[in-house]
Amino acid sequence: MAASLRLRGAASGLRYWSRRQQPAAASLAAVCSRSMASKTPVGFIGLGNMGNPMAKNLMKHGYPLIIYDVFPDACKEFQDAGEQVVSSPADVAEKADRIITMLPTNNNAIEAYSGANGILKKVKKGSLLIDSSTIDPTVSKELAKEVEKMGAVFMDAPVSGGVGAARSGNLTFMVGGVEEEFAAAQELLGCMGSNVVYCGAVGTGQAAKICNNMLLAISMIGTAEAMNLGIRLGLDPKLLAKILNMSSGRCWSSDTYNPVPGVMDGVPSANNYQGGFGTTLMAKDLGLAQDSATNTKSPIPLGSQAHQIYRMMCAKGYSKKDFSSVFQFLREEENF
Amino acid sequence: MAASLRLRGAASGLRYWSRRQQPAAASLAAVCSRSMASKTPVGFIGLGNMGNPMAKNLMKHGYPLIIYDVFPDACKEFQDAGEQVVSSPADVAEKADRIITMLPTNNNAIEAYSGANGILKKVKKGSLLIDSSTIDPTVSKELAKEVEKMGAVFMDAPVSGGVGAARSGNLTFMVGGVEEEFAAAQELLGCMGSNVVYCGAVGTGQAAKICNNMLLAISMIGTAEAMNLGIRLGLDPKLLAKILNMSSGRCWSSDTYNPVPGVMDGVPSANNYQGGFGTTLMAKDLGLAQDSATNTKSPIPLGSQAHQIYRMMCAKGYSKKDFSSVFQFLREEENF
Amino acid sequence: MAASLRLRGAASGLRYWSRRQQPAAASLAAVCSRSMASKTPVGFIGLGNMGNPMAKNLMKHGYPLIIYDVFPDACKEFQDAGEQVVSSPADVAEKADRIITMLPTNNNAIEAYSGANGILKKVKKGSLLIDSSTIDPTVSKELAKEVEKMGAVFMDAPVSGGVGAARSGNLTFMVGGVEEEFAAAQELLGCMGSNVVYCGAVGTGQAAKICNNMLLAISMIGTAEAMNLGIRLGLDPKLLAKILNMSSGRCWSSDTYNPVPGVMDGVPSANNYQGGFGTTLMAKDLGLAQDSATNTKSPIPLGSQAHQIYRMMCAKGYSKKDFSSVFQFLREEENF
Amino acid sequence: MAASLRLRGAASGLRYWSRRQQPAAASLAAVCSRSMASKTPVGFIGLGNMGNPMAKNLMKHGYPLIIYDVFPDACKEFQDAGEQVVSSPADVAEKADRIITMLPTNNNAIEAYSGANGILKKVKKGSLLIDSSTIDPTVSKELAKEVEKMGAVFMDAPVSGGVGAARSGNLTFMVGGVEEEFAAAQELLGCMGSNVVYCGAVGTGQAAKICNNMLLAISMIGTAEAMNLGIRLGLDPKLLAKILNMSSGRCWSSDTYNPVPGVMDGVPSANNYQGGFGTTLMAKDLGLAQDSATNTKSPIPLGSQAHQIYRMMCAKGYSKKDFSSVFQFLREEENF
Repeated sequence: MAASLRLRGAASGLRYWSRRQQPAAASLAAVCSRSMASKTPVGFIGLGNMGNPMAKNLMKHGYPLIIYDVFPDACKEFQDAGEQVVSSPADVAEKADRIITMLPTNNNAIEAYSGANGILKKVKKGSLLIDSSTIDPTVSKELAKEVEKMGAVFMDAPVSGGVGAARSGNLTFMVGGVEEEFAAAQELLGCMGSNVVYCGAVGTGQAAKICNNMLLAISMIGTAEAMNLGIRLGLDPKLLAKILNMSSGRCWSSDTYNPVPGVMDGVPSANNYQGGFGTTLMAKDLGLAQDSATNTKSPIPLGSQAHQIYRMMCAKGYSKKDFSSVFQFLREEENF
Repeated sequence: MAASLRLRGAASGLRYWSRRQQPAAASLAAVCSRSMASKTPVGFIGLGNMGNPMAKNLMKHGYPLIIYDVFPDACKEFQDAGEQVVSSPADVAEKADRIITMLPTNNNAIEAYSGANGILKKVKKGSLLIDSSTIDPTVSKELAKEVEKMGAVFMDAPVSGGVGAARSGNLTFMVGGVEEEFAAAQELLGCMGSNVVYCGAVGTGQAAKICNNMLLAISMIGTAEAMNLGIRLGLDPKLLAKILNMSSGRCWSSDTYNPVPGVMDGVPSANNYQGGFGTTLMAKDLGLAQDSATNTKSPIPLGSQAHQIYRMMCAKGYSKKDFSSVFQFLREEENF
Repeated sequence: MAASLRLRGAASGLRYWSRRQQPAAASLAAVCSRSMASKTPVGFIGLGNMGNPMAKNLMKHGYPLIIYDVFPDACKEFQDAGEQVVSSPADVAEKADRIITMLPTNNNAIEAYSGANGILKKVKKGSLLIDSSTIDPTVSKELAKEVEKMGAVFMDAPVSGGVGAARSGNLTFMVGGVEEEFAAAQELLGCMGSNVVYCGAVGTGQAAKICNNMLLAISMIGTAEAMNLGIRLGLDPKLLAKILNMSSGRCWSSDTYNPVPGVMDGVPSANNYQGGFGTTLMAKDLGLAQDSATNTKSPIPLGSQAHQIYRMMCAKGYSKKDFSSVFQFLREEENF
Repeated sequence: MAASLRLRGAASGLRYWSRRQQPAAASLAAVCSRSMASKTPVGFIGLGNMGNPMAKNLMKHGYPLIIYDVFPDACKEFQDAGEQVVSSPADVAEKADRIITMLPTNNNAIEAYSGANGILKKVKKGSLLIDSSTIDPTVSKELAKEVEKMGAVFMDAPVSGGVGAARSGNLTFMVGGVEEEFAAAQELLGCMGSNVVYCGAVGTGQAAKICNNMLLAISMIGTAEAMNLGIRLGLDPKLLAKILNMSSGRCWSSDTYNPVPGVMDGVPSANNYQGGFGTTLMAKDLGLAQDSATNTKSPIPLGSQAHQIYRMMCAKGYSKKDFSSVFQFLREEENF
C-alpha cells in the first residue's frame, strides 16, 4: 500500500517530500555520509518507544546527539554509543541549535519548553525547535509564540506510522510552521521518515494528524460494525471484505487493516490484536480531536461517539490491544 | 476508479462476473445479438427511475419484454417501443418465465409477489424470479420460501451504482440465491451491469448491499466531520483531502466523492449537491441496516447514529440533496 | 413513589381508572365476589412469567378461565386449580368471548391471532380481545383490522410494572382501542392492575409504553454517566444524588431507582443488579422504539444510542442483570 | 416545584442552607439590616447578565461594594448608586477581603485572578475569594492553589437558576472548598440565593453543576424524542406527558419544563422558546462536561451525543433559543 499511496500523493501535486521520489533511495544516505564531518549536534528530548528509534535514525545519518529524558535509564543506550547526555532540556538548548522533542502529553511538552529547566531558559537565537509530540494544536501555537519571543523558530511535526515505521525510518511527518523553515526541518525529518508533508501555519501539523486519526477511528468502527452485521446475516467475511473493497464502503480499515480475524494476514487482527496502535493511544488522539472540536465549536457527532466507544473499551480491558479490536468488543461473546 | 476497483476485485479471486474481464467487451454484445432470435420474453415489474433504464438495456440486448407498473404512465414508453404491457404481476408471470422486479419498498415487493394479483398467483414451475429491489433480507427470504413452494426459483439481486450506472449498463449486482442458478441470473443481469457478484444464500445480496451502504454512510459523515474540523483548525481543504488520501483516513468518500465544495470536480459537492444519491434514499437504506441489526441483535453504534443524522437532515430540508450534503448540514451557517 | 404518582395522575385530570381512588380498596373485591355467580369465562393465552400471576389475579376475582399456552407445563398449575385447559387459541375463542393474550414477541402474537389454529379461526362476533403483549404498534393495528373483519373488538393494553406488580395486582395498563369499549376492558384489567389508562386509538397503548421506556432508558444511562463522572470528579455519590434530585437533572432513575450501589436501598443496584427489569428486555423495547421511529421517520438520536448501548451490554454478559447495571458497564474495571 | 424540592432536600439530611427553612424568611433580612453598620465592603468582579442582579442583592442586604468589570459601562449603574468602582481586579483585592467573581469563561477567570492586574497581585492574607463562574473544575483547583500560596481562601460556587432566579435572590449555589469556610461563604451567598449546598473539596461545586446540567441536557433531548415519537404514533401530547409523568420516564424536563408547545404554560415552549436557558449556554456547559470526562477518562456516550446535538443546533440557528427547542429541531419541518 505504502508505495502506491506515495505515488498518488506525488501525482496530485501535494507539496511534500518523499525519500522514494529521490533518484535513488541510496543517494540520500550517500549525501548524509558525505556531509557527516560538517554536521552540528542535534538535540533530542524524549527517548520513549518512538523517540528511541527516531534518535537512532538521526545517528545513522551522522548527526551527533545531545540527549535528555526524564528517565535517565532511557538515555543509557545513547550514552554507551557515545552520544552526549545532559540533565535538562535547558542544557540541551545550550548545546544544540536544532532540537527535536517527542513527548507523550500536552503537559510534558509544556514542561520541556516552558518549565523551570525548560528549553526556553537557554535557547539560542535562530534555533530550530521541532516538536513531534501529538498534542493539542492550541498548545503548539502557545509554545510557538513563546519560542518566537526568544528569537527562535518552532514547528509542530507529529508523526503517523507507529514504532515499526519509526525503526525503519518510514514515518510520515505532518509539519506546521513558517514555510521558509520547512526545508531546514526536512533535512532532519527526512532522516526519520519517508514522507514529510507541509501543512501550513503552526498547529496545522497537529490538526492534520488529529483529523486523519479521527476519520480513521470512525471508519475502523464502521468497518467492524459492517463486517459483524454481514457475518450475522450469513455472509462470508472474506467475501464481504472483497465486496466492500470494490464498492463505495472501501476504506483503509477495510482494505489494508481489516479488523476481522482470518480476512487478512500480517495485521493485528491476525495476531489476537497484539501490536499495532493501542486502543488507549487512539482514545488519547480522539480526546485531542474532541478538544479541538469543542474549542472551534465544530460538530463531530461520529467522532465524539468513536471517542466514547474507545473509552468504554479502555474501561473494559482493551487498553493494550490494537484499536481494530473494536470488532471483538462489538461481537457477542461466546458464552452468553 | 471503477476500472481499478474491478481489477482489484479480479485479482483477489472473487467469484464474480465482470464484462470488462471478457476477452473483449464487444463480444458480449455480439453474443447477445447472435442469440437474439431465440430469446424468450423477460418480465419486468417496476419501471421507475432505476427500472426504466435497466429494462431498456435488456431491450438493447434483444430481449422481448412483458411489462407491468402500478403507474400505467410508466409503461407507455415501452408500449410505444413495441413491448407488451399487461395489467398485473400475475399476468407477467403467465407470459414470462424469467422476471425481474425493481421496487421501492418491502411492501411493494410483497404486494408484487404475494398480493391478490401477484406473481405467485400464476407463476410457472421452473421460473427464475430476480428481485433487484433493496429490501429487508428477511423479506427476501420469506419471498424465496413462497416462490420455492411453487416450484420456482427466487434470487435477490440489489444494485449499487445509481441512475447513471443504470443508463450506461454499469450497475453492480449483489446476488443471493441457489448457486446453480447464478449463471442463469448472470445472463440477464450482465446486460444491465458490469459487475455481477455472487454473495451466497438468498438474502445475502441484500445483506452485502446494506453493509456496504452503512459503512459508506459512516465514512461519508466521518469525512465531512474531519474536513470541517480541519478547515476550522486552519487547514486548506484540498491539502487536507490529499493528506487523508495518502494516510489511514483514506476512504471512498474522501478520495472519490469528497463532500467539500472545491476539492474535487464532477461530484455532487461541486454542483450544490444536486444529483447523486439522495439523503432520503440513504436514510431508507440505513433503516434497513438498523432493522437487520435489531433482528440479529448486532450492535451498530455508529450505523445507528448515521441513520439518525440522515433522519435529522431529512427533517431539516436536505431530503433531495445528495447524501454528501452532510458536510453542509454540519457547517456553521453564515448568518449565525 | 407509587402512591404519590397516582395522586399526581388523579389531580391532573387524566382519563384513567385507579383502584386506590375507589372509596375503599376493599369494595372492589366485594363487588367482584358479589357478581361472581354471573361471571362468564375469560380466555387467557400465554402463561409465562407475567401471564401466570395476571391470570391468577383474574381467578381471585372470580373469573373462570379458559387457558392455553404453547408449553403445556405452563398450564398444569391452572388445570390442578380446576380451570379449563384447551389445545389451541382457536379453542379458547370457541369457549370464551373475552380473551387476554400475553406473549413475548410480534411473531407469537401474530401466530396466536392469525395462525392456523389462531383465535380468528373461531372467534365469536362481539368478542373482546385484549392483547397485553409489548409489541410493535403497527402489528397491533394489523391484528385489530383482522379482528374487526370478524365482527369482534381488539384492544392493545401493554403493561408496566414487572413481575412483582403482576403478582400484587399493581400493574399499569396503557390501553388503545375504541373508546366505548374501554369500560369493558377496565372490568378485567382492573383485577390485575391498579392503573388503567386510556391512550387513544388502537396502537396508542403500545406507543405510550414504547415512548416511556425509551425515555426511561435514556435517563437511566444519563444518570449512570452523570453519577460516574461526578464520582470521578471527587463527589460523594449520595450527596450527588441528592443534589441532582433537588435540581433540574432529577428523574425517576435518579430519585427512585438510582443505579449506583450504596445510594438507595431496595433497588437492584443495592443487590448486585439482581431482579428488576432485565437488560435484554430493555433492549427488546428499545428495538420496538427504533422500529416505530424508523417507520414514522422520527429522529431519535439518543434513543438509538441507548438501544446500541444495551445491545453492547447484552453482547458483554449483562443480559440478565437489571438495566441499571449500565452504571457498572461504564465504570472502569478494577483490574485495568 | 421549588418548595417541594427544597423540602425533599431538607428531609434527606443534605448539608445545605435554605432561606425558606429559617423560622421566618423575613428574619434573615432583619439580621442583615441589624448588622448593616458593621458590614465591610465586598468586592464584585463581573457585572454581566447574572452578576448585575446578584450584586444588587448584596447591596439590598447592606453590603457596600467594590466593583470591577472589563466593560466600564457595566459599572455605571452601580457607580450612580454610590458604590465604589475601581479599575482592575487587583484594586478590588486591595480594598475588599471578600470578593465574588462571576465570569463567562475559563480564560476570563484565569485573567481576573492571575492576570497582570489580577486579584492575586494585591490579595490580602485571609481574604475569602468566591468564584461563581461556571468553569472547568481543574481550573478552579489551579486557582485555589495559587490563592492558597498567597494565604487566602478560594471557593468555587457556581449557580443554577438563570437570570430570573438571580433577580429574585433564588439561585442555588453549589459550593466547593474547605469546609470550615463554608459558613463565611454562606453569609454572602445566602443574600443572593435560596439554596447553598456544600459539595466537598475545591472543584466539586463545578463538578456538581456540570453533572446536573449534563443529565438535564440528556433528559431534555430524550423527552423531546419521546414526545415527538409519541405524537407521530398518534398520541395526544398532553396525554403522553401525563402518562410519562406518572411512570418511570418522568423527569424534570417532562414534568416541569416540557419542550412541546401546548403541553404546559409558563415555560419557554409556550413562548416560541424565548427566554430560559439558551442553547449556546447549554452547549458551553456540555463542553465543560466533555472536558472533565476526557480528563478523567470517564465514558459519557449520551453526554457526548447531547453535546454534539446542541452544537449542530447552534450551527443551524438555534443559539439564542431556549435549550428545550431541541423538540423543534428534531421535528419534521412543515414545508418538507
